[in-house]
Amino acid sequence: MSAKKEFIPDWTETAPPDGSYRSIFKWGAPNEFKHPSNAWYRMMKKEFGMTDDDFRKRKDEGLEPVSISRKSAIGRADLARFESIVGKKNVAVDGYSRLRYSRGKTMEEAAELRSGRIGRVTDVVIHPRSKEDVRAIVAHCGRRKIPVSVYSGGSSVTLGLRPARPGVTLVMGTHMNRILEINEQNQSARVQPGMMGPAYEEALNSAPEKFGTKLRYTGGHFPQSFEFSSVGGWVVTLGSGQASTYYGDAYHIVLSQEYVTPAGDIKTLDYPATATGPKVNDIMKGSEGVFGVLVEVTMRIFRYMPKNTQRFAFMLPSWNAAVNATRDVVQGEFGMPAVFRISDPEETEVGLKLYGVHGTPADTFMKLRGYRPMERCLLIGTAEGECGYAKHVKRMVKKICKGYGAMYLTGFAAKKWEHTRYREPYMREDLHDYGIVIDTLESAVTWDNLHRLHKGVREFIKGRPGTICMTHASHFYPQGTNLYFIFIMKMESVKSYLAFQRGVIDAITRHGGSPSHHHGMGRMLSPWLEKHIGKNQMAVLRALKEHFDPNNIMNPGGILGLD
Amino acid sequence: MSAKKEFIPDWTETAPPDGSYRSIFKWGAPNEFKHPSNAWYRMMKKEFGMTDDDFRKRKDEGLEPVSISRKSAIGRADLARFESIVGKKNVAVDGYSRLRYSRGKTMEEAAELRSGRIGRVTDVVIHPRSKEDVRAIVAHCGRRKIPVSVYSGGSSVTLGLRPARPGVTLVMGTHMNRILEINEQNQSARVQPGMMGPAYEEALNSAPEKFGTKLRYTGGHFPQSFEFSSVGGWVVTLGSGQASTYYGDAYHIVLSQEYVTPAGDIKTLDYPATATGPKVNDIMKGSEGVFGVLVEVTMRIFRYMPKNTQRFAFMLPSWNAAVNATRDVVQGEFGMPAVFRISDPEETEVGLKLYGVHGTPADTFMKLRGYRPMERCLLIGTAEGECGYAKHVKRMVKKICKGYGAMYLTGFAAKKWEHTRYREPYMREDLHDYGIVIDTLESAVTWDNLHRLHKGVREFIKGRPGTICMTHASHFYPQGTNLYFIFIMKMESVKSYLAFQRGVIDAITRHGGSPSHHHGMGRMLSPWLEKHIGKNQMAVLRALKEHFDPNNIMNPGGILGLD
Repeated sequence: MSAKKEFIPDWTETAPPDGSYRSIFKWGAPNEFKHPSNAWYRMMKKEFGMTDDDFRKRKDEGLEPVSISRKSAIGRADLARFESIVGKKNVAVDGYSRLRYSRGKTMEEAAELRSGRIGRVTDVVIHPRSKEDVRAIVAHCGRRKIPVSVYSGGSSVTLGLRPARPGVTLVMGTHMNRILEINEQNQSARVQPGMMGPAYEEALNSAPEKFGTKLRYTGGHFPQSFEFSSVGGWVVTLGSGQASTYYGDAYHIVLSQEYVTPAGDIKTLDYPATATGPKVNDIMKGSEGVFGVLVEVTMRIFRYMPKNTQRFAFMLPSWNAAVNATRDVVQGEFGMPAVFRISDPEETEVGLKLYGVHGTPADTFMKLRGYRPMERCLLIGTAEGECGYAKHVKRMVKKICKGYGAMYLTGFAAKKWEHTRYREPYMREDLHDYGIVIDTLESAVTWDNLHRLHKGVREFIKGRPGTICMTHASHFYPQGTNLYFIFIMKMESVKSYLAFQRGVIDAITRHGGSPSHHHGMGRMLSPWLEKHIGKNQMAVLRALKEHFDPNNIMNPGGILGLD
Repeated sequence: MSAKKEFIPDWTETAPPDGSYRSIFKWGAPNEFKHPSNAWYRMMKKEFGMTDDDFRKRKDEGLEPVSISRKSAIGRADLARFESIVGKKNVAVDGYSRLRYSRGKTMEEAAELRSGRIGRVTDVVIHPRSKEDVRAIVAHCGRRKIPVSVYSGGSSVTLGLRPARPGVTLVMGTHMNRILEINEQNQSARVQPGMMGPAYEEALNSAPEKFGTKLRYTGGHFPQSFEFSSVGGWVVTLGSGQASTYYGDAYHIVLSQEYVTPAGDIKTLDYPATATGPKVNDIMKGSEGVFGVLVEVTMRIFRYMPKNTQRFAFMLPSWNAAVNATRDVVQGEFGMPAVFRISDPEETEVGLKLYGVHGTPADTFMKLRGYRPMERCLLIGTAEGECGYAKHVKRMVKKICKGYGAMYLTGFAAKKWEHTRYREPYMREDLHDYGIVIDTLESAVTWDNLHRLHKGVREFIKGRPGTICMTHASHFYPQGTNLYFIFIMKMESVKSYLAFQRGVIDAITRHGGSPSHHHGMGRMLSPWLEKHIGKNQMAVLRALKEHFDPNNIMNPGGILGLD
């Protein structure tokens, strides 16, 4: 049983070859990896009935160079027109570009690319330099009825990027990736949509040096995909950051937007509130490219005071206690924690196991104090903002948690979580190399329906033998929260996995969850939209689509169930 | 000069006769009054060059019984249909009802009614008992192309209620005026739209007795019209309460809504946040009756902890200091004050005069300390919520204000303001009885444009000789605030007054203000909408109108500039 003798799989430590399928589906930076720990490895073997032999050879690594037989359907004249708009070097029709900018990060897409199966890809990739470029391209595509899709961060996990009807794909991150203005009086930043999370945050943090402001700022938006998602993507898919309980979701952080649509430009105004009728600004948020192309967005920004951050972690005796404690916190009228998350019993147990707490004196101590395995729940979080405010929020969280029988674990767990917060997705490729799927689905929920949703979805997932299901709530509101389901299993086939995935989405919606809390809808979840919001609300979305895009060229084919 | 000998006008202390014009235009409860103080009276004489003689005889009191010559245009068969839906006693075609439910509270409407001039009035007044009633009525009106308007609180100051095309008016307050459910887990209340402010708040405050809840709640929404406005009205006109800086505007407080529209029912869901595409819930807010009839709304509610309220008031040395201090407060990331308002130099001076501070030792003391008349600015506010939170917010407000040279005036002024907060509108009739107009217009503004807007609008208003102009900001956001202009003047004629009013709105929009921060648009402000949001956004609203109401029967004639 000595760890020394233990077999350890040969996890990949090599960047995918340039031009390979793997370079497209691999998460994150080519040279960065995060491998399962030995504890992880042991857990997988045990849970999935696998042996060391199953981990001796990686399968379907997708190291081959991309090869696309189907030629771009774009005509010579159209291509010339696009080249005249953006310049020759900003137009690409090679197979690799066409595939790369036609895929996001779903398991389905990864599995297809691993086996070299290529479905639909865009016909031409264009890197616009400005909103004027976008306007000219959309105008031309309108005249020629060529579909227009947008690729920005590329981190979609809802098939938001895989085109149903090939045409033009606009890549926003190449040139349209800057903060155009920080308005310090209004505490807002005017940003191009292709700016990626880290560049955006770094520019705000160093605003005095870069923009001559008096103070430093933060965007307050830190999704797990932070490093590989863009400001524009956050807005058009209604993303949420891990500190959203305090800073708000992208929905709340957007102040105004500018879109190029076939029906003309929409530029909304910067007022934080007006009583001038229904707000077109709202209608555009979450529109996932079906009304038009986001070309500029003005975001609310926040004072950056990282030294004030207060961290905390608690062990609660039960899921019920964790849910009630967090509800009490966010309904308590004393401000909001920033990061705030509770893990259900299985996620807590897996976490303790993977972080090496299982079987230690600390674990024994917890058990003795009545925090029992598969009942206890971990809560971690931070309080941010002005110093006295952050301290008071932490003090109140502590008081409420203690009232629910919590044990205070200091801020260490929160600090540890922060350090790995963006790393977890890297593990996906390691697992998949040996035929193991790790995937997630998530849902918004009102407080009064939380237990029903949690129980119902777990029942479905755990109904499949050998499936790990970890659940947490991580975005809190006085009226509800979200449930985020992570499931890990040995994949039999892509087809059977997709059937299982559909089953989970069915279970979510059947038990009163919304099909998405912050992943957007894409082509994966959109089939559930009409049932979710009803046909009369769908008819409103269709009327808007008809108005903005009567020829159905904007991201056509299934997004939001519009066609 | 002794006050004893001073002439005091005979302000009306009599409730308007039943059935009179005055019973329609008088603000508030028939038997309640608030008269100008002697200081007010002296100020008006001085500012408007009037003498006691001008105040010896009230003019155009509108005490005559309403008499309408034009008969209801509604046909016998339609009437019978309405009676069969709601019952005979819930349908009225008498002249008084038709006029009463066709008028709001603008100066223009009051002036017309005082002189017995009657323009368009509705044809039939219906008091629906349920959403099923509303559905049947809208269906019938759809078939017969009869216009449908809604009357709820009746406090519109934007000509939201004066029909452009007579038809049916639905009075929501008669029967549809209850809380249907308090969901304590979700902290939300499902409410019928005709419920008035005080009944709503009282029911929430006494929720344990009335609904068996564990805690007491507040709606957090206290507009100046609180006593005579309805929950539904707040939602469809995008109102704001005086504590909105903490609780949010009606826009934020709405969780979900149910509408009856000619295109079918819209019932949005209770999720506090989802990523399921553009939200129809948003599109309906502020729709002022042009898409459909609001029949139910679910509002976020808040824990009621009145004992925790912290009050404060400061004198700041200048408007600039007041603006910068409040901006610093709401951008400070330590929570938000609830009531929060700053008066500009003229409003501050008028306030000191009217509250008898002028010329007292306190005034001398302030002047000696450098708070000079027509420069100094009053700030008052409260902090609410959990006890430690409220105290911390007050502490921080104090710290910031002191940094801008403020003198702390204790919480007394805030307390005094609270006691008269809903009383001011009562004075309008007293003034108008002697030919003096007091009226208001208000605007949303971003911080970076506040001084330009304030200066530009004041220049226009003060350009009219003998015009008092008091301005305050009273709804704060990190990105901006509102400016609320109160002007008082001797009215030459209704026509010249309306020309002046149009001039003020022009000045507001010309200097970058929005035409409305929380009064809604109505028929008064809607002509400025297209210029404000641009023709492409107007086209979106028109597309929505066409979808919901292709026959243009819902509140037709000018609302939101749609026809």
